Amino acid sequence: MSVITLLTDFGTHDSYAGIMKGVILSTSPSSTIVDITHHIDPQDITQAAFILQSAFRYFPGGTVHTIIVDPGVGSGRTIIAAQINEHLFLAPDNGVLSLVMDEERVEAIIRVNNSEYFLKPVSRTFHGRDIFAPIAGHLANGIALERLGPLVEKKTICRLEIDQPSISDTGELSGTIIRIDHFGNLITNIDYHLLKEIIKAGSPKTLDFRIGKKNVKGLSQTYNDKLPATPLALIGSTGHLEISVNCGNASQYFNAKKGDLITVIPG
Amino acid sequence: MSVITLLTDFGTHDSYAGIMKGVILSTSPSSTIVDITHHIDPQDITQAAFILQSAFRYFPGGTVHTIIVDPGVGSGRTIIAAQINEHLFLAPDNGVLSLVMDEERVEAIIRVNNSEYFLKPVSRTFHGRDIFAPIAGHLANGIALERLGPLVEKKTICRLEIDQPSISDTGELSGTIIRIDHFGNLITNIDYHLLKEIIKAGSPKTLDFRIGKKNVKGLSQTYNDKLPATPLALIGSTGHLEISVNCGNASQYFNAKKGDLITVIPG
Amino acid sequence: MSVITLLTDFGTHDSYAGIMKGVILSTSPSSTIVDITHHIDPQDITQAAFILQSAFRYFPGGTVHTIIVDPGVGSGRTIIAAQINEHLFLAPDNGVLSLVMDEERVEAIIRVNNSEYFLKPVSRTFHGRDIFAPIAGHLANGIALERLGPLVEKKTICRLEIDQPSISDTGELSGTIIRIDHFGNLITNIDYHLLKEIIKAGSPKTLDFRIGKKNVKGLSQTYNDKLPATPLALIGSTGHLEISVNCGNASQYFNAKKGDLITVIPG
Repeated sequence: MSVITLLTDFGTHDSYAGIMKGVILSTSPSSTIVDITHHIDPQDITQAAFILQSAFRYFPGGTVHTIIVDPGVGSGRTIIAAQINEHLFLAPDNGVLSLVMDEERVEAIIRVNNSEYFLKPVSRTFHGRDIFAPIAGHLANGIALERLGPLVEKKTICRLEIDQPSISDTGELSGTIIRIDHFGNLITNIDYHLLKEIIKAGSPKTLDFRIGKKNVKGLSQTYNDKLPATPLALIGSTGHLEISVNCGNASQYFNAKKGDLITVIPG
Repeated sequence: MSVITLLTDFGTHDSYAGIMKGVILSTSPSSTIVDITHHIDPQDITQAAFILQSAFRYFPGGTVHTIIVDPGVGSGRTIIAAQINEHLFLAPDNGVLSLVMDEERVEAIIRVNNSEYFLKPVSRTFHGRDIFAPIAGHLANGIALERLGPLVEKKTICRLEIDQPSISDTGELSGTIIRIDHFGNLITNIDYHLLKEIIKAGSPKTLDFRIGKKNVKGLSQTYNDKLPATPLALIGSTGHLEISVNCGNASQYFNAKKGDLITVIPG
Repeated sequence: MSVITLLTDFGTHDSYAGIMKGVILSTSPSSTIVDITHHIDPQDITQAAFILQSAFRYFPGGTVHTIIVDPGVGSGRTIIAAQINEHLFLAPDNGVLSLVMDEERVEAIIRVNNSEYFLKPVSRTFHGRDIFAPIAGHLANGIALERLGPLVEKKTICRLEIDQPSISDTGELSGTIIRIDHFGNLITNIDYHLLKEIIKAGSPKTLDFRIGKKNVKGLSQTYNDKLPATPLALIGSTGHLEISVNCGNASQYFNAKKGDLITVIPG
């Protein structure tokens, strides 16, 4: 029994995700389908890349991760299938696998073009139903990657341009908010390793985090380190710097939105 | 192993859908349950009928499609189970199966009244839990339709009054928006076959689509046929005319809502 | 094959619930995972307690109910596992199991502290992933409760302070709205047994329900007892007093919100 995950920007108000599950179960009746989320902001490939990076490793080896954030559907963009470590990935070739490929061992990448495994006729607007779903089912059934299309080199795959945090001459670390979660936590593109560079220069307790005109003093270990309704900074569960309000909503507190700047100043 | 789909207006903020799954798994432990969507607009039977029509055929034969958009719960309305082609359907007798019955081969329709298979006591407000869920489980287990109640004629089943698109004397085709999807696409009740009638009179490229005071020129093949943020018209994945904005939101662009008129003028 | 339910305030826009499912399936590949809901209002333990009470009994015996509404994550709060009737529960020790424990037979309660079964390293912000998910998987696999930690007495478990409805000297029954469901129904903390006390003093038909400055006359049996767009009071599917508007939205009609007072006056 194989696991197939779905990560899309389809939302759940329509039948798009349900239809994909119908096609998957028609192809691979014993597979277990898990929604990572269908609520990626429409066409936000970067957000999907970060969510995928945070989630895929918690699934069993052999899981087929199916990512459909696909503004290029129906255009010339191609679809790739890849084995990365023990996991399988199926996605448009639009860079959404960049973060996973950077960190993990890429075993093989295939450009999916064997229409024998597609649902016919292939529409030009819903490849999720007509290509991704049946291919995911076949992958869960154990089909060899090579049967789906030609092997391609990693260097030929689209890469995502992701805003990188930077450290200024004066030692200030600047990053951006890449996502605001359901609790209003501000999740940044500053990862733990980078923050450690800054901590070396001072102490976690004297770090100063600036969001807009407000700031937070010191790095906390957990939400409860501060009183309720008090803002704090911590390393969240994905290993990234996160700005939170204990039992509150940091997005509202700081009036912050995706893309906003966060600056970390050593104490 | 059988598949049971759920299509409701329950939303996902409450436990209603979860409770139904508990009852289903208590009756049919090895069934696979798939949410088509729980976000039908409250009591919008027409919307549910269109969603069902677009989705059911992508599931394996033998799937039990359970539709609960049921403003008449607790009143005198009855519940029907039907075999249509290779699929089973369970729904209130309120017309929600009309579109499927019009297009497909109806093998048998039963009026469900054998309370032996209901959860007792049957509440008057939540038949989803007390009748639909256990019956769906028994259907997935392979119970014969006839054991659920008496066979009835198709002509005795409620039919939905659905606004039909119309062609005027001057050759203009008028339809309405039946649904706005998660991406803001305006999905109409004008299907491909009807649009072809209009196209005969001119060319796909010269068709003029009017939504409120704005318009779109020409029928596109896919979202990417136009530049980003540009509106377009195409045949969507359900075979219906759809007004979109490439990488944008047509609902906002046209300030359009469900029920609004769309007119197609041959060029 | 065991069932694992998830009841959280995680929402579905992030990957939190999906990641938990990955960990569960890595531990217990043949378990069936059901979302009760992930849309508990953030940190609203009382709401989760009521939802759990309304839902758990509809699942098969042996189901592992996993509740994560956990404002105390990373602080000193502990995690408990309990067998209650034929069901297993896994939750923070914050009172969320109070209502279930009050009504049902508690067989055993364990304080979960055997880190052998945790995902390492255990983060301080996401125990759902690192503790609850793997433990739920092991429970579904049939591990003995005692292997997870020491048995504890019921009296040592946190209890929830829940606003109780009260009957005044003049015989008026006062309660509060504990939840507003997807349809806008106002669900109160007044249960059927308590309402019967009031009904004894008069008749269901002459009961007067006051919500803000508006009122509803008489107890209905079902939504359809009144004309569309008309407000009504009934005992909902959870056995609690519910204020509704037939084919409408009571929350909007009464401009009511969670925590608002409802008074029942015998006729």
